[in-house]
Amino acid sequence: MIEVYSWATPNGHKVHIMLEECGLPYRVIPVDIGSGAQFSSDFLAISPNNKIPAIVDPIGPDGQPISLFESGAILLYLAGKRGQFLPADTRGRYEVLQWLMFQMGGVGPMLGQAHHFRIYAPEKIPYAIERYSNEARRLYGVINKRLGQSTYIAGKQYSIADIAIFPWLRSWKNQGVELKDYPHLKGWFDEIASRPAVQRGLDVLSAERKPLMDEKAREVLFGATQYKRH
Amino acid sequence: MIEVYSWATPNGHKVHIMLEECGLPYRVIPVDIGSGAQFSSDFLAISPNNKIPAIVDPIGPDGQPISLFESGAILLYLAGKRGQFLPADTRGRYEVLQWLMFQMGGVGPMLGQAHHFRIYAPEKIPYAIERYSNEARRLYGVINKRLGQSTYIAGKQYSIADIAIFPWLRSWKNQGVELKDYPHLKGWFDEIASRPAVQRGLDVLSAERKPLMDEKAREVLFGATQYKRH
Repeated sequence: MIEVYSWATPNGHKVHIMLEECGLPYRVIPVDIGSGAQFSSDFLAISPNNKIPAIVDPIGPDGQPISLFESGAILLYLAGKRGQFLPADTRGRYEVLQWLMFQMGGVGPMLGQAHHFRIYAPEKIPYAIERYSNEARRLYGVINKRLGQSTYIAGKQYSIADIAIFPWLRSWKNQGVELKDYPHLKGWFDEIASRPAVQRGLDVLSAERKPLMDEKAREVLFGATQYKRH
Repeated sequence: MIEVYSWATPNGHKVHIMLEECGLPYRVIPVDIGSGAQFSSDFLAISPNNKIPAIVDPIGPDGQPISLFESGAILLYLAGKRGQFLPADTRGRYEVLQWLMFQMGGVGPMLGQAHHFRIYAPEKIPYAIERYSNEARRLYGVINKRLGQSTYIAGKQYSIADIAIFPWLRSWKNQGVELKDYPHLKGWFDEIASRPAVQRGLDVLSAERKPLMDEKAREVLFGATQYKRH
């Protein structure tokens, strides 16, 4: 059974949703990033960048166990394993790949910075809040425009590009965005949110994550601790 | 001939280096991001996120023209087209893929924020400078540790994961990092920097890019302009 080292964050949700969509059996190993569990040597061995999610599949492509980190790589791996949510034709695959990269390089990191400066940072810095709120609105605009021309992010079919982007847009309030300002995006968002597999994926570990970050978690995530441990 | 819409930035360099490594003929179309050329409707049609690089290959996988945006997707496309710098075996491919995603989701965006707050932002914000300088050192630490265990980022062979990461580390001074503090990384860096194809790739568009950003470029890149145009 696939082991998933994860937590209830957007990047964790991507993998939980994908596993539910694929109907693959899996076992979740919680990695409480607020308590520093991502710095344990066991976890580092499979995730050298100290980040969730990571997976271990006891039956890899050559029949031997394989471990993988980075949510984008895990989505591609699971899609390849199942032949699902990634088109079989080469052109369609690159279409998905570019929008998946758009999520990995833009949507995730930049909305993550919006969360940081709007919600978690110990001081309110107007320049940084404006910078990342503006970037959030720009990204929502790009996605909205695309969804005005295309049923799903990467074309006519629901794909891992949708699965990668959707979890990041659930926190639109924390990004200074109004979902109703992006009607094409909102229609797509509501449809995906209604999928049973998506709902099951979002439930994974939801009880374990504390709603508000405590002081210890803040220190572990944003303080000096993580740098000392390298 | 492949058309490359690009500029002399780390993400542009990735593609220039890859094309040189593959020996593929190409034609560069400069997109001066400091003057706002990335907002033209022609460019948007192939790069809906307004970013360089993007490519148009007149002979795609099905013999028809294909356009692609996002440097990570372009590297995978060119690797697939040439059968180079990406292992043929599935396990090796996922090894490369996870480190490529590490670059796309971490190294690029976070070092880009370090550049922004350390060099380009109109005000000096100690919290943000410290945040991204710390993250830069953390990322260099992850890469250094990896290169203490592995000849190249994703294993024994030079791959698109190396080609993706290298251009971002050239600006270590702007990231608050001392290269000599990371000896495994430095050895790898010096070796890659000495490759003739890498040197040719870094030369592309180097004469066009102004060394310092002027006020107009600052407004275009960081001001309100880009958001109004959506």
